[in-house]
Amino acid sequence: MSFDADVITLFPDLFPGPLGASVLGRGMADGLWSLKATQLRSFAHDRHHTVDDTPSGGGAGMVLKPDILAAAIDAIAPEGDPRPKILMSPRGKPLTQVRARELALGPGAVVVCGRFEGVDQRVIEARQLEEISIGDYVLAGGEVAAMVLLEAVVRLIPGVLGGADSHADESFENGLLEYPQYTRPQVFEGREIPAVLTSGDHGKIAKWRRERSVELTKARRPDLLEE
Amino acid sequence: MSFDADVITLFPDLFPGPLGASVLGRGMADGLWSLKATQLRSFAHDRHHTVDDTPSGGGAGMVLKPDILAAAIDAIAPEGDPRPKILMSPRGKPLTQVRARELALGPGAVVVCGRFEGVDQRVIEARQLEEISIGDYVLAGGEVAAMVLLEAVVRLIPGVLGGADSHADESFENGLLEYPQYTRPQVFEGREIPAVLTSGDHGKIAKWRRERSVELTKARRPDLLEE
Repeated sequence: MSFDADVITLFPDLFPGPLGASVLGRGMADGLWSLKATQLRSFAHDRHHTVDDTPSGGGAGMVLKPDILAAAIDAIAPEGDPRPKILMSPRGKPLTQVRARELALGPGAVVVCGRFEGVDQRVIEARQLEEISIGDYVLAGGEVAAMVLLEAVVRLIPGVLGGADSHADESFENGLLEYPQYTRPQVFEGREIPAVLTSGDHGKIAKWRRERSVELTKARRPDLLEE
Repeated sequence: MSFDADVITLFPDLFPGPLGASVLGRGMADGLWSLKATQLRSFAHDRHHTVDDTPSGGGAGMVLKPDILAAAIDAIAPEGDPRPKILMSPRGKPLTQVRARELALGPGAVVVCGRFEGVDQRVIEARQLEEISIGDYVLAGGEVAAMVLLEAVVRLIPGVLGGADSHADESFENGLLEYPQYTRPQVFEGREIPAVLTSGDHGKIAKWRRERSVELTKARRPDLLEE
């Protein structure tokens, strides 16, 4: 069973882009996951391939039409398709490592990239789109957000990353930010690697790292400790 | 004066990628901003172009070497370069719309994309890298995170987006999530556009939108209302 991702976008040529590089690209080549990007415009009825219209009630920008987007979703994920249908949107629930892991263990995802001012609310409701936000900032469109979502998810698909335990110490996996890392050379511009790390005492190293993680999280992200 | 972005990465071919599409690409073509991606490996000393080494104290993954990264930063942003030097990192301060706007009004940014397990802490300190996180999840590398940062920033550079007031109503610009949007057709699968939006009463429309924004923010992101 592989993880099958479909992306609905006005810019299908941007995919796979970063999702085809490095370990993610190797995972795709190995059949661990697949990615198809579909041009939303090909579902438009008129000869200008119109996908958007002005917002009801006025305002800046353009809104994606519900009928066109619904047609695209229905073609890509007919009734019974078990994959979650996701809309990348700053109004959505913030993406977390927990949700990424859930998605990685599922059959895949249909990801809609918003553009313009937004997406007609009725298609969000009628197709039960799960709105996901990657952070509290605004992008020009949902394409890079979809890449973020899929990168966070795909690297968690079993087999995509090499080392089985390479997730364990990462930021957020244990509710803490990751401790500082060091590597050779021993001295860099007069700065030495902390002696404990080259002591060979694994207990002391684990304790030092744990303390640094807690310290860093307290200083930078006290909100994570409260949770 | 334009906004000049430099990206240090092991995957320079991924750029501009999404940053060259749509309004961002037009802004680049119009000279409002520039983007250069530099291959970190070209600063390695050995014939294998090694940029990473095992973590001091043990553990999974590889750590970017401080000397190689420092050489790349110094070549791209010699002393006196006024641009902030940013490291994309899940340990960083979360990106906000406020920081995006500050950056957009500045001279540009030098953005370092992490890979592997992390970056040697000493180069972060010695070059005073500002660690920025795009969200509480882990990516395979910093490339897509750098795209997110630059997309959020570049669209705020004066002149990049067309309509001057197209930012005003967006999510986060007023501390609230954006109200639902609607557009034609009037009826979609039996669902009508809310009558108030087609009433022509601008006062009522503004009130309705404000109420929906508050309601949505309360339901999905009470944390934003507390701030």
